[in-house]
Amino acid sequence: MHKSLGVRSHQRCEMIDVTAQVASAVAESGMGDGQVVIFVPHTTAGVTINENADPDVQHDILLTLGELIPRVRGGYRHGEGNSDAHVKASLVGSSETVLVEGGRLVLGTWQGIYFAEFDGPRTRRMHLAMFPSPAT
Amino acid sequence: MHKSLGVRSHQRCEMIDVTAQVASAVAESGMGDGQVVIFVPHTTAGVTINENADPDVQHDILLTLGELIPRVRGGYRHGEGNSDAHVKASLVGSSETVLVEGGRLVLGTWQGIYFAEFDGPRTRRMHLAMFPSPAT
Amino acid sequence: MHKSLGVRSHQRCEMIDVTAQVASAVAESGMGDGQVVIFVPHTTAGVTINENADPDVQHDILLTLGELIPRVRGGYRHGEGNSDAHVKASLVGSSETVLVEGGRLVLGTWQGIYFAEFDGPRTRRMHLAMFPSPAT
Repeated sequence: MHKSLGVRSHQRCEMIDVTAQVASAVAESGMGDGQVVIFVPHTTAGVTINENADPDVQHDILLTLGELIPRVRGGYRHGEGNSDAHVKASLVGSSETVLVEGGRLVLGTWQGIYFAEFDGPRTRRMHLAMFPSPAT
Repeated sequence: MHKSLGVRSHQRCEMIDVTAQVASAVAESGMGDGQVVIFVPHTTAGVTINENADPDVQHDILLTLGELIPRVRGGYRHGEGNSDAHVKASLVGSSETVLVEGGRLVLGTWQGIYFAEFDGPRTRRMHLAMFPSPAT
Repeated sequence: MHKSLGVRSHQRCEMIDVTAQVASAVAESGMGDGQVVIFVPHTTAGVTINENADPDVQHDILLTLGELIPRVRGGYRHGEGNSDAHVKASLVGSSETVLVEGGRLVLGTWQGIYFAEFDGPRTRRMHLAMFPSPAT
């Protein structure tokens, strides 16, 4: 029930729509109702759900996070120069739980699932696990 | 095991206590131990858990988010003028998982579940899904 | 399948590595594949996943949160003087879901699970619930 997919980012900060890959994995699993957990095994990237219609929304989210949490801050101790990415990862979160009904993701009209890259470009992974509801 | 409830917001930004509705849905489902997932199918609203005793806490949370992420920011591209609400939704998150024991929500003394409206007033929805622990 | 553990914090703001406790609870439960939910029943603390190698990362996360969300802010109404801790708790989140495979946590190389204290020092609790995947 576990599946791991590769994700390739091309910018330092980037929101990558992975909805189709998640939907495919759920369909292939043959599950009916239940939940799928999307888990990002990195500490400078996360996963979030937001608008999939206007790409300007993703731009504005990354812009805001970048202004609130700039790469350079007096007092940072971590020597790799990517403390901002670690903070963003903890705020956006490492996992999402999405409901599944009849083998399909239960998402709102404008919702997409995004891999949130905060320290790319890199080759990343995303784990998926399907949890069918117990038979009743 | 899935249930969808309507939520009505009355302000642009508002934290609406939905603990009682979630508790009722769990009780009605007849589940004993397990988890309930609360999922918000919108991109300018979310769900969070915080203090249910002093309403000033909710005020202070919304105040802080509003100061950190104001409605107007140079560089926003999204034409609808609600980019702030999208950012807040991704930071607060689209879902919560709450544990259930003996048919009751396992919440701390001061915890309530809040629908977090960031671009109201609107008629919204909230999905609930109950996942009983497998029999052992 | 539910377990509750004590956590002792020693600073006002502190990230406490609880990975080993979560791993032990999962191992003791005897589950193979599935998920473990870590839930914090407090409104001024949360749980997050981030780097476990360089403690400077945890320092930088707490520094950033403290600068973005200072303890004193004009307009705060909550009388206890810990509104900042409530905001941080809602942003970092009250729960994490971690995948389990063959009885072991599925975490990335650099990932650890942290109890995030924002209003210590205190004696706290953390609930764990194991959800094995249904047999297939």
